[in-house]
Amino acid sequence: MTGPIALGSARDKLLFTPGPLTTSVSVKAAMLHDAGSWHFEFNEVVQRIRERLLTIAGVSRATGWDVVLLQGSGTFGVEAVFQTCVPPEGKVLVLVNGAYGERMVQMLAHARIAHAATRWGEDAVVDASTVASVLDDDPDISHVAVVHCETTTGILNPIDDIGAVVKRRKRVLIVDAMSSFGGIPIDLDACGVDFLVSSSNKCIEGVPGFSFVICRRDELLRCEGMARSLSLDLLAQLKGFEKNGQFRFTPPTHALLAFDQALSELEAEGGVRGRNARYSANHAALIAGMSGLGFEPFLSSDVQSCIITAFAYPPGDAFEFGHFYRELSDRGFIIYPGKLTEVDTFRIGNIGRLFAQDIQQLVLAIGAVCREMGVLSEQTALADG
Amino acid sequence: MTGPIALGSARDKLLFTPGPLTTSVSVKAAMLHDAGSWHFEFNEVVQRIRERLLTIAGVSRATGWDVVLLQGSGTFGVEAVFQTCVPPEGKVLVLVNGAYGERMVQMLAHARIAHAATRWGEDAVVDASTVASVLDDDPDISHVAVVHCETTTGILNPIDDIGAVVKRRKRVLIVDAMSSFGGIPIDLDACGVDFLVSSSNKCIEGVPGFSFVICRRDELLRCEGMARSLSLDLLAQLKGFEKNGQFRFTPPTHALLAFDQALSELEAEGGVRGRNARYSANHAALIAGMSGLGFEPFLSSDVQSCIITAFAYPPGDAFEFGHFYRELSDRGFIIYPGKLTEVDTFRIGNIGRLFAQDIQQLVLAIGAVCREMGVLSEQTALADG
Repeated sequence: MTGPIALGSARDKLLFTPGPLTTSVSVKAAMLHDAGSWHFEFNEVVQRIRERLLTIAGVSRATGWDVVLLQGSGTFGVEAVFQTCVPPEGKVLVLVNGAYGERMVQMLAHARIAHAATRWGEDAVVDASTVASVLDDDPDISHVAVVHCETTTGILNPIDDIGAVVKRRKRVLIVDAMSSFGGIPIDLDACGVDFLVSSSNKCIEGVPGFSFVICRRDELLRCEGMARSLSLDLLAQLKGFEKNGQFRFTPPTHALLAFDQALSELEAEGGVRGRNARYSANHAALIAGMSGLGFEPFLSSDVQSCIITAFAYPPGDAFEFGHFYRELSDRGFIIYPGKLTEVDTFRIGNIGRLFAQDIQQLVLAIGAVCREMGVLSEQTALADG
Repeated sequence: MTGPIALGSARDKLLFTPGPLTTSVSVKAAMLHDAGSWHFEFNEVVQRIRERLLTIAGVSRATGWDVVLLQGSGTFGVEAVFQTCVPPEGKVLVLVNGAYGERMVQMLAHARIAHAATRWGEDAVVDASTVASVLDDDPDISHVAVVHCETTTGILNPIDDIGAVVKRRKRVLIVDAMSSFGGIPIDLDACGVDFLVSSSNKCIEGVPGFSFVICRRDELLRCEGMARSLSLDLLAQLKGFEKNGQFRFTPPTHALLAFDQALSELEAEGGVRGRNARYSANHAALIAGMSGLGFEPFLSSDVQSCIITAFAYPPGDAFEFGHFYRELSDRGFIIYPGKLTEVDTFRIGNIGRLFAQDIQQLVLAIGAVCREMGVLSEQTALADG
């Protein structure tokens, strides 16, 4: 193999993953330029991106909001909030119902920040009443952190209810909205969010390279001198943008040019609501198609997001994930492995430059591979007529 | 302005900066693909990049070396070494003769790691004999950190002499070779390097998005449990690559595809020696051209690298950097501001996809702008005939 994706195909394989995603040709083409990171024309792009992110979030500087871009993956952005914003005497409660919640616990352990975790089953949403009693029992807790859409399963946590409970108790709320922001409407004010983190390569449909934190400016300004890391110092990063429009350290210039284009394409699609409609249609096509093949989603439909769906392995010995994955890859479809601790699953993402027709093509390929493998034979035979 | 660089020009402006750099069209075109970060084909690219970096460094796994890629800018890579590898009782001596040395001091202060700094003038190289006496006087110092090519001025520190002194005293040596690796030959064994850090958008001529740390594997394995940051945990990152070939967290897939192509182009140019020859020719063309205009380099030639050169502002009131910069930008040339604390300078980089002809074009433009501004009038008139 000489090229990355090169098996002689004219087209890239489609990515049915939680990101990096399949992006539009025009988003990728925006990277065919080298921009100077100190240059005023590039700084205008950075500034424009920040303004557009606030607009998409439905908030404004006038009502106390700001946004900071940070190099690295989304995980770097979530950790930056902890490393910058939790005071030495602070304590973070993490609400966990999947791997990304657990990752926040790991971050806090690494940073030697006091923390506690409350855990739910991977198929259960975080319930606000439990959060209320945990907060009432532990006055040391200063911050609460939760994942909006847990990509482990695709479950959607009720951040509005959680936020109400957290705000009533005057704690700071940190939301990891990595895989939901831009694809699912979020009312930051109504949810009582103080810090919301997402990244360039999720529902905005840019390429990977940076994360962004939309935050209450006052909450960030309060963190002077607290950062435990220079690279992950969100407040210094904000001050850098305000001083001269620049990132403090080399930004991923090409990823930023791509993101600016991706934001234009999001607007052209009708913003978050337009994008949500496409992802919902993708999800509906997936559920219909997979049900036809005999696959049932791991989650019940009332807590399932339109972002990504986990499916349990089919029963019997005939199914081997590695083989299944490679067969689909050979047909031009890249799916995603499971991440659940107790049930073997695989996952299929609906986000990125994908349409219902792409989902239908994928389902056809899954059916064909299942027939070849001799799994789900009754259902697939049935579905196939 | 709708496009990033778009002033209606058919060509991007050339970047005479320390990076992000002007890269080849083929490097940028490698980003026209979306790769799955979990996918085996992409993992092969990551693995190949790691092998090629060791080859370029002239080291091998057989002799105890390894390499870790890390999301973010070069600064993230340097900080990751500190955050991961300095034990709680450790103390770092930073050898400072410019802004990037000072940045290492800031990192250590943020991470609450014990440290000391020894400082030289910005026009003086770090001298090994001073380092020797500092180390002899302070047995608490466990690690020594130095910048190879200080981009502040372009000065090249003698890491061979420094390394000999550090190794004789059995301390760990950390070298920030951000702007030199790939463009200036470095004998890691002879220099006694334990950790060397560089980034994707410097002399390898890739695009920004990640750093890499070439290290003595034993030294990194010694750091179990010490990391103060999850995102910046270099040892966990190494283990991730070894477990399944993957980055632990979303990698900048497009920047990695570009880097793989950039490595091929480095090889085609004759490796580090071939690239060094081009950069040296660029530097010679720059010095000759700028001298002809009456500009003298800030550094004396015996300590000046071929990477980037600082020039003092010309005397008199006629020179205004902002105007000078914009006039050159309008002509398609982006230079770089100075970063010296006591002398006003601007900088011109020679690295990236630039050739002596590009340097000559730049010098012509500088001469023209200077004439318009009425600076260096005698010399430029002379140079111009």
